[in-house]
Amino acid sequence: MNNTIIVGAGLVGSLLSVYLARAGFKVSVYERFGDPLQGESRSGRSVNITLSTRGFQALDAVGLGDTVRQFCVPAYGRVIHSQDGRTTYQPYGNHQEALYSIRRDDLSKILLDFARSQESIEFYFNHKCLDLDLPTGTLTLQDVVTDRIERIQAEKIFAADGAYSAVRQKMQRLKGFNYSQEYFDQGYKEIVIPPDSQGNWPLDRNALHIWPRDRFMLIGFPNLDKSFTLSLHLPYQGEISHESIDSPQAIENLFKTYFPDIWESVRSNLANYFASPVETMVTIKCFPWSYQDKVALIGDACHAILPSYGQGANAGFEDCQLLARCIQQHLDNWQDAFKAYETARKPDMDAIAHLCVEHFTVLHDAVGNAEFQERNKLERQLQILYPDYAPIYYNIAFTDMSYRKAWEIERSYRNIIDEMLENRFNSATSIALESRQFCTIA
Amino acid sequence: MNNTIIVGAGLVGSLLSVYLARAGFKVSVYERFGDPLQGESRSGRSVNITLSTRGFQALDAVGLGDTVRQFCVPAYGRVIHSQDGRTTYQPYGNHQEALYSIRRDDLSKILLDFARSQESIEFYFNHKCLDLDLPTGTLTLQDVVTDRIERIQAEKIFAADGAYSAVRQKMQRLKGFNYSQEYFDQGYKEIVIPPDSQGNWPLDRNALHIWPRDRFMLIGFPNLDKSFTLSLHLPYQGEISHESIDSPQAIENLFKTYFPDIWESVRSNLANYFASPVETMVTIKCFPWSYQDKVALIGDACHAILPSYGQGANAGFEDCQLLARCIQQHLDNWQDAFKAYETARKPDMDAIAHLCVEHFTVLHDAVGNAEFQERNKLERQLQILYPDYAPIYYNIAFTDMSYRKAWEIERSYRNIIDEMLENRFNSATSIALESRQFCTIA
Repeated sequence: MNNTIIVGAGLVGSLLSVYLARAGFKVSVYERFGDPLQGESRSGRSVNITLSTRGFQALDAVGLGDTVRQFCVPAYGRVIHSQDGRTTYQPYGNHQEALYSIRRDDLSKILLDFARSQESIEFYFNHKCLDLDLPTGTLTLQDVVTDRIERIQAEKIFAADGAYSAVRQKMQRLKGFNYSQEYFDQGYKEIVIPPDSQGNWPLDRNALHIWPRDRFMLIGFPNLDKSFTLSLHLPYQGEISHESIDSPQAIENLFKTYFPDIWESVRSNLANYFASPVETMVTIKCFPWSYQDKVALIGDACHAILPSYGQGANAGFEDCQLLARCIQQHLDNWQDAFKAYETARKPDMDAIAHLCVEHFTVLHDAVGNAEFQERNKLERQLQILYPDYAPIYYNIAFTDMSYRKAWEIERSYRNIIDEMLENRFNSATSIALESRQFCTIA
Repeated sequence: MNNTIIVGAGLVGSLLSVYLARAGFKVSVYERFGDPLQGESRSGRSVNITLSTRGFQALDAVGLGDTVRQFCVPAYGRVIHSQDGRTTYQPYGNHQEALYSIRRDDLSKILLDFARSQESIEFYFNHKCLDLDLPTGTLTLQDVVTDRIERIQAEKIFAADGAYSAVRQKMQRLKGFNYSQEYFDQGYKEIVIPPDSQGNWPLDRNALHIWPRDRFMLIGFPNLDKSFTLSLHLPYQGEISHESIDSPQAIENLFKTYFPDIWESVRSNLANYFASPVETMVTIKCFPWSYQDKVALIGDACHAILPSYGQGANAGFEDCQLLARCIQQHLDNWQDAFKAYETARKPDMDAIAHLCVEHFTVLHDAVGNAEFQERNKLERQLQILYPDYAPIYYNIAFTDMSYRKAWEIERSYRNIIDEMLENRFNSATSIALESRQFCTIA
């Protein structure tokens, strides 16, 4: 019987293998796709990842943070592009706080490379999980190169096989297993634009770029090789939609009308645009995240979220840290370990799932509004005046505060900030602030 | 190529076959279980069904209502049993409105018998749906007696295969298909108590009987053969739960303490109690309910609800009527027919799904309270004074008003009725009633 199996060698599966190896386990990782270190790249996933504080904390804890940092481009704020070409800069924080943009492939290779250097971790690529017999913990795996079927019984199975997790699909059949999948009504396509003719970044490299256009938007992420990845978010159907943008002429019209300042960089890089499928975005929730003392779900397999806060990978990395801690604390009882993990983590992931849906509207629409920009400034001023207070974006991206707590703080201060925006620091608001002990709650 | 296939010969599948045959289609119905007319009974389903107005409307429309009525016992109200043995009667309406209690097997046999008498309907029992290729409409079916696998391509597939629908499970894999399954935190076991020693019903036959005990309850349904089906609802875990009621002594203690007035009838009928599994209750939502112009989901396959309002079968029968109407109206375009059906029906089923969860709390707890009983009386008095107003229970059970509309009316009048209960018809409330045109909105 194998000791410990991880299904999925994506970002979360790879990092988890490192955590489990450090805890003394011999780990086998089975991955349905080919080996990315041999040039096999998996399809259907966003090109760029943004790492933030909680992601780095989980990487630093196993000594991987600095390697990863070398492959990142820091973005210290957002550049908002108006339709008339004007830009506005919104810093993320008061102290050069940054999101770190990295290519998924680069991050994946760093993690894999490191995991493989560990003696107690083995990777098996091109192995697709076909079935799992839960009571016995027996996985049915297909070698997709040879078509050979293998059955492997494991003591512990960790499912890091993503939003469409085969392991979770098996657990979904259990009575009492709650599950939901909810698709966002927009999808995106990516366009990579190369360095400009002088070999420089085609846009300010130290920011994320957003072209908010109410019901749709364009986002740009800097890459280390001086290219930018643009992500065009559109509804599936309607006047301006993936359905209606169906020809080179239609996309040219779209860019010339709504994103004129970037059209020249985009026009020669649309070769794959129509061939590539629209990427969907889905929120997945379920509970429980474990089966007896045998199986635990982790990352997108139990809590896929929308990418609006750029938290998907960060949350998955945080899962690894928490799960490893729970296992350490309950070494003699895995069911207790799994229960501690899922009970602690589920409310946080429900909170961030909700916040991500909400934040998409902000990105589409509000970030371009004068009102939002004023709120944004006010929140940053407040953060200087009351150093224990921070806006929700800050708490999510630049702290390791639980997502639930970040949401609670936001709800608790939303009305006060609304009032301030209306009254601009009149005396009544100051009193409200004092009486709520603004400094201590956050 | 077969014309029209229904997957599932349960209550909804059988009735749908009749509706489709009347609309001129040749229908084949595939059912995974054996033929109930040959004594094969399916497991895992509640013994009793309560039919109400909307269910009968769909049965009457195809001439089946009166046959079904002959197998029903009408229940004109609830008898609430207190722990001290006292009973209170709550009539469902002011005019002898009744829920009709019928055994699932009896209802199923009537529908099947009738459907089989139609030349254009064929039934295939012991055929399990293993797979469905959506783009071609090809079903893979296994004859569970001979193990033979058959592939059948159909022009139209109707999935009436229940909460665990194989067809829906296939649609769940589609991008953009929203789905949720949420288990209620209680389950139930059934105990059938026979006629008393004089050969009479052991409880008042013309009522449903409820023993509300806050976090758990017992419900009794009258049967035509003078037996009663008791349904014991308990949490899965905790002090008084399916887990803790694990021995003949424990169940005796439970009944003697909480349901003493029925213990004598129960004690000799517990032979199967511990052998039978706890029945789970699940709310299932999904959307869309159709795939192109090929597949439509119906009944529990797209909207399983909790049984607290006794609406499951009624809602499924209503689906048949609506779907048949939509097909008639869009004979030239099945995709339009399916879209009209799902768009009209989805908000209603979301409403009743919510109301059923809410109503479980009422059954467990409130129906036994003086406050609830006073509200109940007041609502019935109001219904006499303002004949166009009716309480939500009435609108759900005794009209064919859309579930959504019934909920809207309830929300619209909840505060007024709360206020009346506090003030008992003071002048302010009368004015509020007048100004809201109480009579016309309902």
